[in-house]
Amino acid sequence: MEEKTIEREVIYQGKIFDVEKHVVSLPNGNTSVRELVYHNGAVAVLVIDESDNIVMVEQYRKAFESMSLEIPAGKLEKGEEPLASAERELEEETGYTAESLEKIFSFYGAPGFCSERVDVYVAKGLSAGEMNLDEDEFLNVKRYSFDEAVDLLDRGIITDAKTIMAIQWWQLSRLK
Amino acid sequence: MEEKTIEREVIYQGKIFDVEKHVVSLPNGNTSVRELVYHNGAVAVLVIDESDNIVMVEQYRKAFESMSLEIPAGKLEKGEEPLASAERELEEETGYTAESLEKIFSFYGAPGFCSERVDVYVAKGLSAGEMNLDEDEFLNVKRYSFDEAVDLLDRGIITDAKTIMAIQWWQLSRLK
Repeated sequence: MEEKTIEREVIYQGKIFDVEKHVVSLPNGNTSVRELVYHNGAVAVLVIDESDNIVMVEQYRKAFESMSLEIPAGKLEKGEEPLASAERELEEETGYTAESLEKIFSFYGAPGFCSERVDVYVAKGLSAGEMNLDEDEFLNVKRYSFDEAVDLLDRGIITDAKTIMAIQWWQLSRLK
Repeated sequence: MEEKTIEREVIYQGKIFDVEKHVVSLPNGNTSVRELVYHNGAVAVLVIDESDNIVMVEQYRKAFESMSLEIPAGKLEKGEEPLASAERELEEETGYTAESLEKIFSFYGAPGFCSERVDVYVAKGLSAGEMNLDEDEFLNVKRYSFDEAVDLLDRGIITDAKTIMAIQWWQLSRLK
């Protein structure tokens, strides 16, 4: 089933992603074109605070021109390990440090064309501290009870893949 | 919190997506650059057959050079309604037609840079028929029991966002 690259064209080399166009050979011997977005990967953290509230960040998402309510997340710096990145993003976006971060799943959000893998962790043993945002990062930290979070999900207010998955995981973990 | 576009550069106009680079104004008056992937959107369908098995498709994903096990899905054709697209993809990839498709959620898989919204449906009232794949589409239809699907999820074999969400939704719907 493998699609071998026969020709590779670099379309764009950006800060967040690169774009390439590959001519590939198909299992039936034909060729086809694949347009691909290469991304370094990202991490996200499910944070349940001492009052059993989920901690989320609300920010503007330019790609769809709307505010979005999401669990804390960020992209991997070059050469950075996912776990270290998750610790860093957690502290930058919420001020929290965690005794441990446990991976709950890894996912591809757009497997048809994009290499971005997101590793999602759950934070255990939180200590509160100071937020420390990137220069061009603007976000509001929000806290919601379990029932509120499930309601936001059921009403379709939450539309971010990692956040939907994380809240479902939270629901399932409470039912086990 | 809105980020207004001040300058817009079209980097690439492809078949699957376009790429643009925007200079935006930030809430603090500074400017920043956003690299953006514009995608027409997609649909996916959770299919539980008459034997209570989930129907998935296994295919090669060039973006991360691996096989991937996913619920049936596809991109919206130009001007196509999501519901019509879901009916079409369901029939093309699995041969099934459904009495009704009910939307269970919409998500953005890569909200930091990509506009692709995926609408996920659950199929009700299935009738079996013939598959009808696109010319350059190669996939194996696979069926798994509830326990097998949950095990594939727990072991991290399933890494596709829409499929993780759909299986968790299935788990939650059985617990309600």
